[in-house]
Amino acid sequence: MTTLPSHPRFVSLEGGEGAGKTTVLTALRSALAAEGGEVVCTREPGGTPLAERIRALLLDDGSHEPPAAETELLLMFAARAQHVRATILPALERGAWVISDRFTDSSYAYQGGGRGLDAGFIAELERRTVGLQPGLTLLLDLGVGEGRARARDRDLARAGDGPDRIEREQDDFFQRVRAAFLARAAGDPQRIRVLDATRPAAAVAAEAVAQLRAWRAAR
Amino acid sequence: MTTLPSHPRFVSLEGGEGAGKTTVLTALRSALAAEGGEVVCTREPGGTPLAERIRALLLDDGSHEPPAAETELLLMFAARAQHVRATILPALERGAWVISDRFTDSSYAYQGGGRGLDAGFIAELERRTVGLQPGLTLLLDLGVGEGRARARDRDLARAGDGPDRIEREQDDFFQRVRAAFLARAAGDPQRIRVLDATRPAAAVAAEAVAQLRAWRAAR
Repeated sequence: MTTLPSHPRFVSLEGGEGAGKTTVLTALRSALAAEGGEVVCTREPGGTPLAERIRALLLDDGSHEPPAAETELLLMFAARAQHVRATILPALERGAWVISDRFTDSSYAYQGGGRGLDAGFIAELERRTVGLQPGLTLLLDLGVGEGRARARDRDLARAGDGPDRIEREQDDFFQRVRAAFLARAAGDPQRIRVLDATRPAAAVAAEAVAQLRAWRAAR
Repeated sequence: MTTLPSHPRFVSLEGGEGAGKTTVLTALRSALAAEGGEVVCTREPGGTPLAERIRALLLDDGSHEPPAAETELLLMFAARAQHVRATILPALERGAWVISDRFTDSSYAYQGGGRGLDAGFIAELERRTVGLQPGLTLLLDLGVGEGRARARDRDLARAGDGPDRIEREQDDFFQRVRAAFLARAAGDPQRIRVLDATRPAAAVAAEAVAQLRAWRAAR
């Protein structure tokens, strides 16, 4: 496992499509904001103007040239290197909480598990260009079939906002992504807590808030 | 030094601003095209539609957020990983010559020498995501002051086409870039030939063509 320093006010949410990350993020933000401090909610790929421009290259609707797997990995880490330096570290240094919708675990899952790129190289990129990890990561776990069905329903509800380039991958890709997420969690159970996301969104969000409180109390 | 495989029909041009790479590239292309084969002239960062979009992020005119040094390095290698797979390897595999205006040596010089990033990490990126090197690299060497004066004259002649983000760095940055290029050449004299670019462009171009012929004859 990685031995990067973790930050006690940095929380990430991970999980596949349709797992309910948005609902959980809103609940965590409300719980922390109720204490009166600043809460920065951000996302990956993205989280700065430049990183959002890199996101647009990564999640392109398919009308342009698709990136090779290595290109995709390097663009993800380019966006993350910027996100850490321009958004996350400044927020942590001024005492804010940071909640990120996805962080480095997603690269291990999608580019490592999904695309088959070497985890040792991903770890080297993490060590050289990221240099920190969340104190707490909540992994919303859901079977691939159910997650994709929910994502399709969500996309239909938002007419015109269809799946992005990565969301259009096949089921076996997402099975590898899920397996890689679960393997990450098994290898680092102190940091990564797995939440059963088959339950209603409100129940998952309530458990996420309870996990955050328990984690803070134990520190 | 790197021990990546080199390709006998892959030539790169390197050098700082104002060294005359464009004139040399045109002369090399003409010399090779006269033999009747296909010659692909390309450039970095860029060389594919996606890599050119990454170039636009990298060389932004400054109205957007500048990338951190690590972000710059990863964007350069993201563009290069795509360039190799989508443009360079397909051209070499169909028997064409490839001449690239800049390649990986520029990352050692600009992001390594200029920005101070670790050369060992750059070598790891090269090994993992590039995987080949030119058979011949021509390094057009010129003092920083003279090169920058020539680049300014060129930009004035093309009204409205001013210096990009990297070209606006200070002289000490370009001194480090030049020193890193010369150190690369000293460490790999079989591949990298240094040309004195203080001479008139036509003389430099003639020597470049002669170097290419001598290199081919010696193989």
